[in-house]
Amino acid sequence: MPRLEDLMKKSVADAPIEPIRLDEPVPLEALHTPALVIDLDVFERNLDRMQAHLDQHGIGLRAHTKMHKCPIIAREQLKRGAIGVCAAKVSEAEIMFAGGISDILITSPVSTPEKITRVIELAVLDPELSIVVDDIGTADRFEAAAARAGIELKVVIDLDPGMGRTGIEPGEPALALGRHLIESCPHLIFSGLQMYVGNCMHIAGFDARRSKYAHLMAKGAETKRMFEDAGIPVPVFTGGGTGTYDIEPGLGILTELQAGSYAFMDIEYRDIGGQSGEVFDDFEPSLFVLVSAISKPQSRLITVDAGFKSLASDKDAPQFRDVEGVVWHWGGDEHGIIQLNNPSRVLGLGDKLEVITPHCDPTVNLHDFYYPYRNGVVEALWPVSARGRSQ
Amino acid sequence: MPRLEDLMKKSVADAPIEPIRLDEPVPLEALHTPALVIDLDVFERNLDRMQAHLDQHGIGLRAHTKMHKCPIIAREQLKRGAIGVCAAKVSEAEIMFAGGISDILITSPVSTPEKITRVIELAVLDPELSIVVDDIGTADRFEAAAARAGIELKVVIDLDPGMGRTGIEPGEPALALGRHLIESCPHLIFSGLQMYVGNCMHIAGFDARRSKYAHLMAKGAETKRMFEDAGIPVPVFTGGGTGTYDIEPGLGILTELQAGSYAFMDIEYRDIGGQSGEVFDDFEPSLFVLVSAISKPQSRLITVDAGFKSLASDKDAPQFRDVEGVVWHWGGDEHGIIQLNNPSRVLGLGDKLEVITPHCDPTVNLHDFYYPYRNGVVEALWPVSARGRSQ
Repeated sequence: MPRLEDLMKKSVADAPIEPIRLDEPVPLEALHTPALVIDLDVFERNLDRMQAHLDQHGIGLRAHTKMHKCPIIAREQLKRGAIGVCAAKVSEAEIMFAGGISDILITSPVSTPEKITRVIELAVLDPELSIVVDDIGTADRFEAAAARAGIELKVVIDLDPGMGRTGIEPGEPALALGRHLIESCPHLIFSGLQMYVGNCMHIAGFDARRSKYAHLMAKGAETKRMFEDAGIPVPVFTGGGTGTYDIEPGLGILTELQAGSYAFMDIEYRDIGGQSGEVFDDFEPSLFVLVSAISKPQSRLITVDAGFKSLASDKDAPQFRDVEGVVWHWGGDEHGIIQLNNPSRVLGLGDKLEVITPHCDPTVNLHDFYYPYRNGVVEALWPVSARGRSQ
Repeated sequence: MPRLEDLMKKSVADAPIEPIRLDEPVPLEALHTPALVIDLDVFERNLDRMQAHLDQHGIGLRAHTKMHKCPIIAREQLKRGAIGVCAAKVSEAEIMFAGGISDILITSPVSTPEKITRVIELAVLDPELSIVVDDIGTADRFEAAAARAGIELKVVIDLDPGMGRTGIEPGEPALALGRHLIESCPHLIFSGLQMYVGNCMHIAGFDARRSKYAHLMAKGAETKRMFEDAGIPVPVFTGGGTGTYDIEPGLGILTELQAGSYAFMDIEYRDIGGQSGEVFDDFEPSLFVLVSAISKPQSRLITVDAGFKSLASDKDAPQFRDVEGVVWHWGGDEHGIIQLNNPSRVLGLGDKLEVITPHCDPTVNLHDFYYPYRNGVVEALWPVSARGRSQ
């Protein structure tokens, strides 16, 4: 009979992190659906494009693993030149470290005693680990824990861009926290600032997005200047995402971009529009949920086997990769009901179809495996190793 | 290097299905959040109440395991008198069978060749398994597969109540399918009808719900009479749910009720209203997501560590079990932002709070473990054994 903490450590040690190669490659149409599939050619194009763009502008890629939750994919990003990764939560960072990745920033504040202990235990194993803090009391608790463990821990100050999610107020409050870290927390190594403007990522229209984003990020730039004027160097400024990847070079604030969705894309990002028009197609959808038609209850309807348990439902309705003239209606937890207005091809019972996900991150989090394919064939499964690790 | 089907079988054999007892019991406030917790006293009251109600009215409980995905809970329901369980999908049924449960009805049609094979393989192991069919072509494919395997398979005809999700049209089309089963499918044993009126479960107001439901179920009753007039006995009529549990006795159509949510309850069901008023409180919330306050970016806001990846977002916003005067705003995949209008108690960083789930089924499906507690202490973890099994 184990202790809870022992169980949690065992579950990290037991998590599958390597590809599972299949003895007999499986054609896409033989997969048991719903299945989370990756079109590898498109996926690799997306990875290459983002890295080339950031290389050209001298910005580092800190790939956000909250999106894919998969050390195999993180290693693909690092292989192409990413400087490190970020994780939303401690439990996600544990899996990335188990998967051989060491330069990890945990982007969300941690406040409870048992979770602070867990961060310190990971930092003992991984001296490259960084965390964010946005509160002096929390900083003091981390300082005490790091001192007890005899380690130094890299710390980034999280700034609230005004969206009120996490972060300390930019300007004087942030500077006071910075001074506190430098003066009173010898085991915490101040390494820079984070300002992630999540509420700008999906503003429709490039110009509107750039304008709002530049306005909000100005507070971050001003805070950085205040730190430097106070004699506190700010080597790292981390933030941004897929929706601002082409805005950042013009602003010149970020040293590293926390992009995730560009690798897979989704309907939400596709619809924000890009510099060239109403569709943001700088990156292409490479992730799909493969579904099967299982019922045809009425002449203008066909029902597929994926609902809220296979496709995240916080945003738009799903769409098909290669069928037009149909409308998706959610059919509850297990089903999608497809209204056949003027379908661009005949759909019948047993047909398998690729669905573009409305929102890739929480959709990935519903599945245990990716089925990556090339030329219509799956040769290995990739575990979604950090699935469900929201702690 | 295994075959895909070998991998899938191994994953069923490896799935955790028994409680994991803790050497040191853990108080609720020491759990690593987000954590899916069950208040056992309330949970057991809910199970007892439903069983007593159905016993009184001579209706069987066919507990729907799509909701809890946990053989431990299914066994609690069977122990109290449930006649069997249902599963939404084949992969869910496989886990229930692995957990020692044999009388399982798969409530959603299956249409693809590899999934038909999988059903037959389970039926070879479990002669009590039942499936639904709603299409003559699919029935023929099952007949051929059952004949090849040398087994008989129990089959229920799924009727579309007009919601257009799954099922054949009641009346003549259903009767034609019934005759086809009897006359042309010697390996398929017709055992009755299913009519699940999913779009009635959440109609607000008892009288409005009863009126619409009775109207739609009349087609099912009429279809049953047509079968009997044609000399085809209909021993089973299965359907209904938590929202109609107290309507069924008055209608007298169902022989068994497919209820699931009553065990845990959620905001969606609570708000449908009951016979005694605007709140449906015949069953009480027993399932919560325990969250921690991790940031206080602004004076009237506090942020907790649970978002779309820990709480299903297809319906209403979450609410707290024991804090009033606050409003939940979704803060994305990982966060909830709590607006502190007039909070009924002071909330601070590190505080842990129980959240009532908006929709229990897809919320459960996000978590790997339940943390059941009594007197504020967790003594064992219950695996959500069929989590993610939507195939």
